[in-house]
Amino acid sequence: MSGKIGFIGLGIMGKPMARNLIKAGYSLVVYRKLDEAGAEQAASPRDVAERAEDVIITMLPDSSNVRDVVAGKNGIIEGCRRGQAVVDMSSIAPLASRELCALLAEKDVDMIDAPVSGGQEKAESGTLAIMAGGGEAAYERVKPILDVMGRSVRVGESGAGQIAKLVNQTIVAINIAAVAEGMSLAEKAGVDPRMVFEAIRKGLAGSQCLEDKAPRMFEGRYDPGARIKLHIKDLANVLETGRALHNSMPLSAILMEMFQSLAGDGGEALDHGALGLFYEKLNGISLKKS
Amino acid sequence: MSGKIGFIGLGIMGKPMARNLIKAGYSLVVYRKLDEAGAEQAASPRDVAERAEDVIITMLPDSSNVRDVVAGKNGIIEGCRRGQAVVDMSSIAPLASRELCALLAEKDVDMIDAPVSGGQEKAESGTLAIMAGGGEAAYERVKPILDVMGRSVRVGESGAGQIAKLVNQTIVAINIAAVAEGMSLAEKAGVDPRMVFEAIRKGLAGSQCLEDKAPRMFEGRYDPGARIKLHIKDLANVLETGRALHNSMPLSAILMEMFQSLAGDGGEALDHGALGLFYEKLNGISLKKS
Repeated sequence: MSGKIGFIGLGIMGKPMARNLIKAGYSLVVYRKLDEAGAEQAASPRDVAERAEDVIITMLPDSSNVRDVVAGKNGIIEGCRRGQAVVDMSSIAPLASRELCALLAEKDVDMIDAPVSGGQEKAESGTLAIMAGGGEAAYERVKPILDVMGRSVRVGESGAGQIAKLVNQTIVAINIAAVAEGMSLAEKAGVDPRMVFEAIRKGLAGSQCLEDKAPRMFEGRYDPGARIKLHIKDLANVLETGRALHNSMPLSAILMEMFQSLAGDGGEALDHGALGLFYEKLNGISLKKS
Repeated sequence: MSGKIGFIGLGIMGKPMARNLIKAGYSLVVYRKLDEAGAEQAASPRDVAERAEDVIITMLPDSSNVRDVVAGKNGIIEGCRRGQAVVDMSSIAPLASRELCALLAEKDVDMIDAPVSGGQEKAESGTLAIMAGGGEAAYERVKPILDVMGRSVRVGESGAGQIAKLVNQTIVAINIAAVAEGMSLAEKAGVDPRMVFEAIRKGLAGSQCLEDKAPRMFEGRYDPGARIKLHIKDLANVLETGRALHNSMPLSAILMEMFQSLAGDGGEALDHGALGLFYEKLNGISLKKS
């Protein structure tokens, strides 16, 4: 596929993703303004769909936004046509994603759910982890576009990408808390957590979360990154999906409570690494080193 | 330091560590028999200390074993002399480690706590993560010997190595459970966990535990590796230390309960990756793929 790509959702993540597509030689039609040569502005999601050639990408905060943009008044569904594909890169509830896929299928329009992991930095560098769900033929058609934004893996049929994202967010939240819980013990025991970090990072405790979040905790640096508010949304989807399937997720449930405590302290806009702050308050310590 | 090294504790971990020292050109005096040229056998820990030159290494299952070997009848303390160093590479309670360090100090013998992470495979390849605590001068003297067995970092004074090991084990246990909890959701939702693994492993959910344990779960392969029995010992030390310091460790407490369930099912000798089995039972699923 080539030609003009529709792109709806130019937030912290969407903007650098759109810019990378332009850099790669694609032209875009966007809903909100993108100050960039190569992007023309449309009046509505419907208008985006009408003016786009083969692919319309959405990158929005949550399920209700995607539902509005796809199926609401002046939505994509009113403007799209047979043979197009909607690639929803938002992180939303798997059930909502499957519903929208079914709705678009009635118009012979494919939908690929393709949520991402990696945050603003990796959006900028075009190195996102992209978890795709949907038909294999449709995935292969949109893959060259996904390749511009990161490394994609098709994990299964419609909604499977969203499930993979929930698994990702489950593991990430728990891994960050593991770092904070472990480091709280070191600090309380009078051992410099920075030295513990150096000693354990190359062993079985090593993780991307340890590498990214432990230094944040030692610096008290909780600017996002990935906002707690969005991780709460993801964990709500984890627990909602788990409950619909009767899948018990005891650690995810506790992580939700930890994030609620941070949100209650006004921390919704902080990076999820602020689980360090949760353990500081819990245990009356400071992990921050001057 | 050079010359003949005392080595007490030739189990799954100790044996390959001792062999690597011999390969590196050191001669050993051991308590139990090591079928290897370059190792002579002593009659007791006391005898080991008397026949060793500068360094006596211990690698034993738990605090009580180390206490016996160091301070019990015919123990190291009866045979050691001024200027020697005891390097305890066992994973034991930090408080016990500090007590023994103080005891040896009365005889002008240094003690370094230097527990390891990495398991049998990394013991064999000489690539253990070694977390050392104790005086800086003593650490520098024994470092060339530690370097043969892996990568060591001195994290602080006596007991700090044991604290770092507890932090390590806290993070490892929680990270393994995170993998199993996440994958249980994928499986229950009808998405192949192996594809989810492929999609997320290079992102923020990536970890050494994901790389090592997810494939075990998919293969139902729970031969140790690192035994649940020993991880239970470590978590008991984590919680005991946490409670002595009033450091709240909610996730570690739950992990202990998960391991107890596995031990109750006869799983003490399984690899700690068998947290996959815990989630299989919890959620009535199988993560094993033929």
